Amino acid sequence: MVQLGANRYGKAEVRVVHVARGAAPDGGDVIKDWNVSSSLSGDLAGTHLSGDNSNVLATDSQKNTSYAFAKAMGGGEVEAYALALATHYVDTQEPITRARIAVQEYGWTPIPVNGHSFARSGQYTRTTTVIHDADVGTSVVSGIEDLVVLKTTDSEFWGFPRDPYTTLAETTDRMLATEVSARWRFRSAAADWAEVHAAAVSALLSAFAGTHSLSLQQTLYAIGERILTDLPALCEVRLALPNKHHFLVDLEPFGLSNDNEVYIAADRPYGLIEGTVLADDATDPGIAWD
Amino acid sequence: MVQLGANRYGKAEVRVVHVARGAAPDGGDVIKDWNVSSSLSGDLAGTHLSGDNSNVLATDSQKNTSYAFAKAMGGGEVEAYALALATHYVDTQEPITRARIAVQEYGWTPIPVNGHSFARSGQYTRTTTVIHDADVGTSVVSGIEDLVVLKTTDSEFWGFPRDPYTTLAETTDRMLATEVSARWRFRSAAADWAEVHAAAVSALLSAFAGTHSLSLQQTLYAIGERILTDLPALCEVRLALPNKHHFLVDLEPFGLSNDNEVYIAADRPYGLIEGTVLADDATDPGIAWD
Amino acid sequence: MVQLGANRYGKAEVRVVHVARGAAPDGGDVIKDWNVSSSLSGDLAGTHLSGDNSNVLATDSQKNTSYAFAKAMGGGEVEAYALALATHYVDTQEPITRARIAVQEYGWTPIPVNGHSFARSGQYTRTTTVIHDADVGTSVVSGIEDLVVLKTTDSEFWGFPRDPYTTLAETTDRMLATEVSARWRFRSAAADWAEVHAAAVSALLSAFAGTHSLSLQQTLYAIGERILTDLPALCEVRLALPNKHHFLVDLEPFGLSNDNEVYIAADRPYGLIEGTVLADDATDPGIAWD
Amino acid sequence: MVQLGANRYGKAEVRVVHVARGAAPDGGDVIKDWNVSSSLSGDLAGTHLSGDNSNVLATDSQKNTSYAFAKAMGGGEVEAYALALATHYVDTQEPITRARIAVQEYGWTPIPVNGHSFARSGQYTRTTTVIHDADVGTSVVSGIEDLVVLKTTDSEFWGFPRDPYTTLAETTDRMLATEVSARWRFRSAAADWAEVHAAAVSALLSAFAGTHSLSLQQTLYAIGERILTDLPALCEVRLALPNKHHFLVDLEPFGLSNDNEVYIAADRPYGLIEGTVLADDATDPGIAWD
Repeated sequence: MVQLGANRYGKAEVRVVHVARGAAPDGGDVIKDWNVSSSLSGDLAGTHLSGDNSNVLATDSQKNTSYAFAKAMGGGEVEAYALALATHYVDTQEPITRARIAVQEYGWTPIPVNGHSFARSGQYTRTTTVIHDADVGTSVVSGIEDLVVLKTTDSEFWGFPRDPYTTLAETTDRMLATEVSARWRFRSAAADWAEVHAAAVSALLSAFAGTHSLSLQQTLYAIGERILTDLPALCEVRLALPNKHHFLVDLEPFGLSNDNEVYIAADRPYGLIEGTVLADDATDPGIAWD
Repeated sequence: MVQLGANRYGKAEVRVVHVARGAAPDGGDVIKDWNVSSSLSGDLAGTHLSGDNSNVLATDSQKNTSYAFAKAMGGGEVEAYALALATHYVDTQEPITRARIAVQEYGWTPIPVNGHSFARSGQYTRTTTVIHDADVGTSVVSGIEDLVVLKTTDSEFWGFPRDPYTTLAETTDRMLATEVSARWRFRSAAADWAEVHAAAVSALLSAFAGTHSLSLQQTLYAIGERILTDLPALCEVRLALPNKHHFLVDLEPFGLSNDNEVYIAADRPYGLIEGTVLADDATDPGIAWD
Repeated sequence: MVQLGANRYGKAEVRVVHVARGAAPDGGDVIKDWNVSSSLSGDLAGTHLSGDNSNVLATDSQKNTSYAFAKAMGGGEVEAYALALATHYVDTQEPITRARIAVQEYGWTPIPVNGHSFARSGQYTRTTTVIHDADVGTSVVSGIEDLVVLKTTDSEFWGFPRDPYTTLAETTDRMLATEVSARWRFRSAAADWAEVHAAAVSALLSAFAGTHSLSLQQTLYAIGERILTDLPALCEVRLALPNKHHFLVDLEPFGLSNDNEVYIAADRPYGLIEGTVLADDATDPGIAWD
Repeated sequence: MVQLGANRYGKAEVRVVHVARGAAPDGGDVIKDWNVSSSLSGDLAGTHLSGDNSNVLATDSQKNTSYAFAKAMGGGEVEAYALALATHYVDTQEPITRARIAVQEYGWTPIPVNGHSFARSGQYTRTTTVIHDADVGTSVVSGIEDLVVLKTTDSEFWGFPRDPYTTLAETTDRMLATEVSARWRFRSAAADWAEVHAAAVSALLSAFAGTHSLSLQQTLYAIGERILTDLPALCEVRLALPNKHHFLVDLEPFGLSNDNEVYIAADRPYGLIEGTVLADDATDPGIAWD
């Protein structure tokens, strides 16, 4: 005999764009470009076991709700919008006891010709995941992804064990590149979202650039430490850092030297460093990372 | 003050192809095409805190090991290969207490001209994730991804609640399509891997096709139930089923009827149904899903 | 001073799915899954120069037309559908003198449980491009893409020149893999589309498998020659064959031999072999490849 | 009987990264990040017809050459590098009469912490394609791709014909968004590459933003006209502009107005506007667009 375990359902990747006309300090428009996914859980055994959908708020309704809530909240910060959505579902749908709202935000830069033209910035994607549970409470985890950073020097890798499968040479000067996925957990569901976002990205960039790296793990820890030190509103940082290898090309067969000038940017395989840094007084994560 | 939390590191997406010449029943070659990712954890505080790499088996060494182990194990089942790799790291690297090996296998179909020519089948990707921990033991989770299935009828969706954001019409006959990601957990680290794989895929397809669906959740549960019923070696199934919406086109403005003939295949947003089905006597998952 | 040159516009990637219920020989459904792009050209200077849209049939109307035409033509061959669409635009929109219709068709395989369930086959994508011009006439170019094929042996590469940048060793036994993009041009706009498609794919596969290859160029020519020899309805074949390199792993550092057993499947860079094979009596291509 | 038609071969997507240490005006490093593809043509019948490779400079040698040439040329402009490569092949390989070098350049922005740290900018990709032919001469076509731009207003679309498949409403105020692919052809193979690039991108952005648009075709023409007017070194511009539709959400069912505030960003289908703008005294393009 079998039974139903954990489950959730929702509408993924609802593409919402909001324009706040004239809302910029210089009188230009402010644009928000979001990719919104909602997931609901609760008393959903009926639909799984017998196809009874009386507790299943349609994913199409969730799509509609994502758009409707953008009317009032679309000009604000993505965390506030996600909190409003998550709370709405639990408050209004009795069988739904938990809602998870994940949003990606794409950045746009004004084209300095008029107040209504923009170019997509492309440097990184801002993210947030809000989970609101009727019993457990509310968590907010924000972050960034798709940020590719590189150091041309100030990175070493040596002193590692040499097992029978080890052929890698030690190096005291290598190129280091990674595509940052970072998520930071807030201590509470109230914060200055915009300020924390800006300061965390700034901390991340300066820790990456400023750390003399003996390993990508060390860089990871330094980034997490810097973010938590700079941002008391946060208590935990999780990072996934693929090591985007740049190998020096051997130019000797062609009678040329290569004094750390010409590199191969490799695709696969790549190193993948994943780690968590926590404030000593971090709150209980509860369901924040689900 | 901050501290290091959970962490792991490894080499991702090592692309291994193995040829067993003449090993097919008809004397043709047998080809295995794998995408291998390894992740190690254990006593790794040193590299994070001070850049001391004495416990860090290089990810380059992991790449080499993935290739070297394919020499002996590359002709076999992907689970056996992953188990060998995972055990190897924990057994030979004292600071490493846990290894996670994830493999994707791409299928190839012989071209019936000679025994050494193949076309990539493309219907789905076979997966396995093996975690071996010095204390907790060993888990094996296998499955498939990228399998797109569709039913032209035998699917309904009605009886759902109508909140102020609900505009969706009820239907007793809709097209149902999804791209299956399925993972099944083995009760133990010993099984007839090939046989379970074939039988689980067969159970999945026949449950999808044979279930008269009142909701995609009901189909999800039916698939999990069928797999667990057919395969006593398994005790848990997790499924993620995006609802790849196919909307009927309104042809009335053009003076045409549309009797469930012409559909729009939509990209985004999509429903996303995620759920778990468990045998009543399922073993403790431990770290199997990490 | 500047002037307007060649131009065209249309609606790209209209996703049309058609179900012909009970139309299969065994009484099951027949499903067609198409990605349709239309492009129109003609007297379009007005919209470019002054924004006068009186000659611009909206791309939204083209989308509607792609769906509407699928009502009658969606159960047939993709070439017939594309011909009907192309002719329609030129015949009904006076300023439009040329229409180009490109369609990708994704394959589906019945799940042998009932007549209405399918799995996407994934092995390759069928394509066609029809161009109909009021003056120049009509061309049909069909083909396939996304077909990945591989030979474990029967492939050599040697005898190439050695310039100062050449380090590659010669080989008389290598693995050969490629992802085939093939397009074949019909002599006329009338043919047994289904039969030609099946026979051309069959010729392609058997030529790839059966040719002892001294270079991928030789394989390319053999494929083109076989298709043209087998299919008198065709007069030209164009192929783009990326050489998906599979490098033998050096296992010697680990005390292992590698007798053509374990390979690295590389991503980038890749060789790219592009070529045309023509029947000696090929018709003038005209605008077929535009 | 069949014959060989047009053909070429080469190495695609060689990933070259060059670091010029201390070369920036402020003493920081300058990084160039290129994706290089080379294609050669000439007397290549032998390899196609009989597998005689004596005229086939290996694609592996082309890869090596791309890296070797980056030693001397990697710190400069991408057009100069491509010209050097193209000329090299034709000058040194007697059977090779034409070389085509295509390069994509990814942008990096310094992280203002030290001179050796960078973040990938992501806003657009710079491109160049150089073709050098022993008989026909040399062409240079540069451009950009992946640039996504958007206007929140100043865009209309009305006055289009209404055929039986037209349902689109006219609008005098819509959002306009596109992902620009632009290529501009130089009059000669000598120019201030960096200056032209910067000025062409600037012209493109200001024409997009500054044009009150009655159709995307009109915007296309305005962009081409502006670039050619500003840059006398150029004589032809080709643009491909997908119309990335942003549809106003109907919020009325939820009792809300939508005064051009909340939009759906659609994926597929999309309009696709392609066009050419030429200087009245443009030079003969010859093989520049091959």
